[in-house]
Amino acid sequence: MLDKDRLNRVLQQMAKMGVHQMMITDPNAVFYMTGKWIHPGERFLALYIAENREPVLFVNELFYFPEEVGAKKVYFSDTDDILPLIKAVVNPAQKLGVDKTMAAKFLLLMMEGGAAAGYVNGSLAVDTTRAMKDEAEREKMRVSSHVNDLAMAQFRELIHAGVTEQEVAAQMLDIYKKLGATRYSFDPIVAFGANAADGHHMPDDTVLREGDCVLLDVGCVVDDYCSDMTRTFFYKREPDELQKEVYNLTRRANETAEEMLKAGIPLCSVDKTARDIITEGGYGKCFTHRLGHFIGIEDHEFGDVSLANKNLTAVGNTFSIEPGIYVQGKVGVRIEDLVLITENGHEVLNHYPKDIDVIG
Amino acid sequence: MLDKDRLNRVLQQMAKMGVHQMMITDPNAVFYMTGKWIHPGERFLALYIAENREPVLFVNELFYFPEEVGAKKVYFSDTDDILPLIKAVVNPAQKLGVDKTMAAKFLLLMMEGGAAAGYVNGSLAVDTTRAMKDEAEREKMRVSSHVNDLAMAQFRELIHAGVTEQEVAAQMLDIYKKLGATRYSFDPIVAFGANAADGHHMPDDTVLREGDCVLLDVGCVVDDYCSDMTRTFFYKREPDELQKEVYNLTRRANETAEEMLKAGIPLCSVDKTARDIITEGGYGKCFTHRLGHFIGIEDHEFGDVSLANKNLTAVGNTFSIEPGIYVQGKVGVRIEDLVLITENGHEVLNHYPKDIDVIG
Repeated sequence: MLDKDRLNRVLQQMAKMGVHQMMITDPNAVFYMTGKWIHPGERFLALYIAENREPVLFVNELFYFPEEVGAKKVYFSDTDDILPLIKAVVNPAQKLGVDKTMAAKFLLLMMEGGAAAGYVNGSLAVDTTRAMKDEAEREKMRVSSHVNDLAMAQFRELIHAGVTEQEVAAQMLDIYKKLGATRYSFDPIVAFGANAADGHHMPDDTVLREGDCVLLDVGCVVDDYCSDMTRTFFYKREPDELQKEVYNLTRRANETAEEMLKAGIPLCSVDKTARDIITEGGYGKCFTHRLGHFIGIEDHEFGDVSLANKNLTAVGNTFSIEPGIYVQGKVGVRIEDLVLITENGHEVLNHYPKDIDVIG
Repeated sequence: MLDKDRLNRVLQQMAKMGVHQMMITDPNAVFYMTGKWIHPGERFLALYIAENREPVLFVNELFYFPEEVGAKKVYFSDTDDILPLIKAVVNPAQKLGVDKTMAAKFLLLMMEGGAAAGYVNGSLAVDTTRAMKDEAEREKMRVSSHVNDLAMAQFRELIHAGVTEQEVAAQMLDIYKKLGATRYSFDPIVAFGANAADGHHMPDDTVLREGDCVLLDVGCVVDDYCSDMTRTFFYKREPDELQKEVYNLTRRANETAEEMLKAGIPLCSVDKTARDIITEGGYGKCFTHRLGHFIGIEDHEFGDVSLANKNLTAVGNTFSIEPGIYVQGKVGVRIEDLVLITENGHEVLNHYPKDIDVIG
């Protein structure tokens, strides 16, 4: 059912941008607004919203559903011309906000048909609203990360002599599903030894060796909300000096950044805090990515924790804190939690331990 | 490496459409043209092509790769403004073809920046070219469907007393991978009994019962090309009269449609042939979807086998022939092969038997 609070918050953001009507086509955003998942593939799906107007959901009859959704439903078939249906709803005297991801074929169709007075990327209105999770969403984020904590404990047990990255990864989905997740939030990263230093590494047939670091970057979807956590273990042997130095530095960057979190601070300052620790430790060039990304219905949502993002944290933000140090050919360590900005400061949503853990 | 033959064929199609430059952003199409997979997520990725111009690949430096790709590479970072880079390449005096799926944020950026004289959906140029598989692609389609045949034989062995749909489905990916596939081409459909009559059914915890039909609609990706096949088995008991009638009618529709295939016949006539058989058998209303879809790098590509498609088959087309009869609450049968249109007629790419098969 269409969430009136979310609708009003999006309309307020639109008003600030001078956009008074909008066509939302991102299925994630349509779900966010209506609670209804429709995966239209290449077909048209759009939620039209405007001030003081009943929302309208344009949906192919292939995705017919009987229940009320809090919006007027306009059905069409694969052979129908959708332009007249759109023109009957959109106010041609106003410009129309569209999703940043709206497919060009639909945008060009509306433009050529003169549906609106102009077209503007209006995604920011939805994205900034989605970045501030409401109470129901916060609870779902907690539950999803809790499942991820439980799963990490089981993933740890998959690490044993002779196993390959791919063999470990192949067992994860089942574990997640038994814990109540519906799917991965992204394909899991399992990296042994020097592979952990390669940012693009995907699980392959590399066999675990004594002394390897074991990087697990994993997440699942529970009740439509994503988790995402990284832990780095060591196999069979206490970490050597380099491994230990890199691990402890990464952990300190992670924990210091988390401790400072509260509403109203620049996201870039959080990245800088973590980055400065790693730079002062002598590994600045080995921390090759931003500190974190926003997350919710999608694993990567609008907003990030980077030196370039001058925006302030706000209550309801959920994002990752994931510093990493990658020493090519030798070792890669990343430690990642999800965090939630609250009225009182912050919550770290992951509780899986971060002490150095030598398996086997 | 950029495939000159494919490039020339796309440029010829563009010329027919009066489009003389194009920005291709669909990662599947970029792969088709260059042999290079880049999954840019929300970031800009585009292959610019134009007559008598060196192709240009716009790619974020996060996806840096050292090897030659047969196009000039233009790298940019997350903080760079891409508009000047685009304007330095696009001819502002000509209209620009764009992908049907290009994200609105990029199209609006180019429009607001005056990059071209106009913008037009140019996807048809790429899509019609992709629909005519070249020799290398045909061989990959054969191999992928061969793997699917071998997998189906193993999937059959998963059907036993007490098993659930979900338990069967959960074992399929491993089987595919051991046979050399990289992934599913789509999430497998496993449906027992009346579930097989529900077009939207996903594998759940339904337990197999004696007398059930067992519908398996499955496919994998081998060497970047998709397979897709459906077989319907029966469990433990010879099919009853209704099951047998529905099965034999579906099989006759499948085989008759396949037998007529050659280059130059209307795709709608193929659908009609299969549909007429089922309608004359009294089950026309139970065949609720089109007869088939084109397939290749993607499971569903441009082109279909439906009453609405008046286009003619052409050498190199690969598509599915998948009639089905769905008797709500009772039984669902679908029999699907992939086919290839050849110079001499056609090849059926699947060879898994279609005789009534009672398991257990």
